[in-house]
Amino acid sequence: MSRGVTRRGLFVGAGALGLGAAAGCSAGGKSATESTTLGATTATARSVPFYGQHQAGIATPAQDRLAFAAFDVVATDRSDLVTLMQTWTAAAAAMTAGKQVPGGATSPQAPPQDTGEAVGLPAASLTVTVGFGPGLFDKRFGLASRRPAALAELPALPGDQLDPEKSGGDLCIQACANDPQVAFHAVRNLARLGRGIVQMRWFQLGFGRTSSTSSSQETPRNLMGFKDGTRNIKGEDEGLMGSFVWVGSETDQSWLQGGSYVVTRRIRMLIESWDRDYLKDQENVFGRSKISGAPLTGKTEFDAPDFGAQDATGEPVIPTDSHVRLAAPENNAGLRILRRGYSYTDGIDPVTGQLDAGLFFIAYQQNPHKQFVALQRRLGSKDSLNEYILHTSSAVFACPPGVQNAQDYWGRTLLT
Amino acid sequence: MSRGVTRRGLFVGAGALGLGAAAGCSAGGKSATESTTLGATTATARSVPFYGQHQAGIATPAQDRLAFAAFDVVATDRSDLVTLMQTWTAAAAAMTAGKQVPGGATSPQAPPQDTGEAVGLPAASLTVTVGFGPGLFDKRFGLASRRPAALAELPALPGDQLDPEKSGGDLCIQACANDPQVAFHAVRNLARLGRGIVQMRWFQLGFGRTSSTSSSQETPRNLMGFKDGTRNIKGEDEGLMGSFVWVGSETDQSWLQGGSYVVTRRIRMLIESWDRDYLKDQENVFGRSKISGAPLTGKTEFDAPDFGAQDATGEPVIPTDSHVRLAAPENNAGLRILRRGYSYTDGIDPVTGQLDAGLFFIAYQQNPHKQFVALQRRLGSKDSLNEYILHTSSAVFACPPGVQNAQDYWGRTLLT
Repeated sequence: MSRGVTRRGLFVGAGALGLGAAAGCSAGGKSATESTTLGATTATARSVPFYGQHQAGIATPAQDRLAFAAFDVVATDRSDLVTLMQTWTAAAAAMTAGKQVPGGATSPQAPPQDTGEAVGLPAASLTVTVGFGPGLFDKRFGLASRRPAALAELPALPGDQLDPEKSGGDLCIQACANDPQVAFHAVRNLARLGRGIVQMRWFQLGFGRTSSTSSSQETPRNLMGFKDGTRNIKGEDEGLMGSFVWVGSETDQSWLQGGSYVVTRRIRMLIESWDRDYLKDQENVFGRSKISGAPLTGKTEFDAPDFGAQDATGEPVIPTDSHVRLAAPENNAGLRILRRGYSYTDGIDPVTGQLDAGLFFIAYQQNPHKQFVALQRRLGSKDSLNEYILHTSSAVFACPPGVQNAQDYWGRTLLT
Repeated sequence: MSRGVTRRGLFVGAGALGLGAAAGCSAGGKSATESTTLGATTATARSVPFYGQHQAGIATPAQDRLAFAAFDVVATDRSDLVTLMQTWTAAAAAMTAGKQVPGGATSPQAPPQDTGEAVGLPAASLTVTVGFGPGLFDKRFGLASRRPAALAELPALPGDQLDPEKSGGDLCIQACANDPQVAFHAVRNLARLGRGIVQMRWFQLGFGRTSSTSSSQETPRNLMGFKDGTRNIKGEDEGLMGSFVWVGSETDQSWLQGGSYVVTRRIRMLIESWDRDYLKDQENVFGRSKISGAPLTGKTEFDAPDFGAQDATGEPVIPTDSHVRLAAPENNAGLRILRRGYSYTDGIDPVTGQLDAGLFFIAYQQNPHKQFVALQRRLGSKDSLNEYILHTSSAVFACPPGVQNAQDYWGRTLLT
């Protein structure tokens, strides 16, 4: 077995029976299908369809774990980019189906085609999503005229304390899965396949909802202990996805139609300070009750906030500088984004000796300057949460449309 | 609800019915019991008994995720240490049962007793294991005469490239769980409760076997793609645990009887070099087949290696410098250790631009100098694996015996 060898031998039989991972697929990975591995019938073992109108990993319900990498392109020829995208596409198609990286003959006298640490593990709902940074559209590859206007570097924003070495990048890969080893394996193998063409610039691990341990927890909590994502766009809401997430006919660059933009922000939480804050103050910062997640004007998590409500002294019940008020679509001309962030912990800050932990914020949207930048300008200048957070990394990428089939590849509409 | 408040309200009812997490407990956490949370009936949701002859987290089957922290003690009074251990014990007993951190009245005008990010999550098989470093036995606390001889700092060893800031420590906490947020929550809350008495020195996250996604994968793979742990001691093997892991009557310090020693080593893998190595060479380095995990003289993973077997040219089939040969008990006067390590990935090495990833090696044993040091002297000087690894952090701690009941606390036998 060489090309197309499966992570488990079982997949071979499954394919022959027509029960492969692509069965029942639909665009955007919304209907994850059961994989056919024995002993792995839980939600965590499923495979998400790779091919479709949109890339998977955007509308796909958030998996448990994240491995995110940004790369600089070190090659200077556009044909190298095409080769890279074709290679990455084939590898991602295989890995998201729970198979090993394909390509070429294997021999005991050659390096293995796949690094092997995911052998025996199921697809684990792996999605791999690619994006192109503004730098890719400089002079090197003759792509300057194809840069969408909305793919401009983000401006300086209130709250920025960015580390330039952990920001930006020509390309990005978002790998999400319900198993950290599967997510890491995907990024590591794509980095390996890209040697000589790309160099990894920064890398971030994250963890999020824990569906495998808590199917009843509908909204995960961030590391401040608050539910995060109550009012987020749902991937299956095609109306909101079309209005706020997918790039459509409004774009100045038709190659990006069916794609999206992703903004990433590494938002460090000053958790030692936060942990010393009073419960009531914490709740005023978010505008929500900590345990229930209800807005301060409601009783349950999904109650709509009543921004007009006042207390006995005439003060707003949901403070004017609370996060829920400042971020609410009602108070931002209806603006929305699709958030898909993960918590992170990266050891100890060597300067302060405190835990370096927080939120790796990921947001998909139709236009980052009209959406994320507008929201962050407002939040960054007024949000009482700012006392407890720092934005330490920032990046923006245009994510091309989905790969249609095995002959297609990521970025074909841009690179040809 | 204040003291004893549960992570889920459901636990309150469960306790009243006598179905609490301590039901059916036995020493050492070997018989994990089902928690009673609704919608969380998988193996990942169980709670591991906290009280027993030995600390849990040693013989306990390895959970999926690790959060490991080392601390320096900044207080100078032994009574502060006693207070800390009593506080930590009560908090760990609650958290491992899936409850919030207890203690004191909660008020909206006070910081919450628990940081809250694990509310709604089950116990997830959390174990919390404490150890005392050699530095604790200096002049500060009057404990110098209580230091076991075996709790000496580890000598310089072949392969060391240690970062002193990420090595050592007066105390350690190993938190393992099947949910990363639960493991992180435990360390974070213990660090918070220890403020003014301890300062975190270093912190390491890890991930390991993924029982929730792959119940059929009996031996997890390391980041070199090889199965790791095939010949490890099983926690339920009481004979081997008694001979090689638990401290018994052989110790010079009776307070440690029923305890163990832990050695931690952050072993970075040079995975970019490894990934370019030929499959056959990789297999010769380990002395095993990559996919099956079988020794080169066998057909299946659990076949015993035949160290005498020769090939047609008279060379040993399992090379003389292979890892399996050098580490084998047969070739080390029967010496064994209980390994409980986790893979890690910590972003990019800023010097080389390569992924900083590898194994956070954790090994429990009766005497680190007679066991780990002897093995590592042999491996570090001869093992062909050394070309691909660096030891970047090192620590040793004595882990006191288990906490007997709610009146007992970690380290009582030492501190009183």
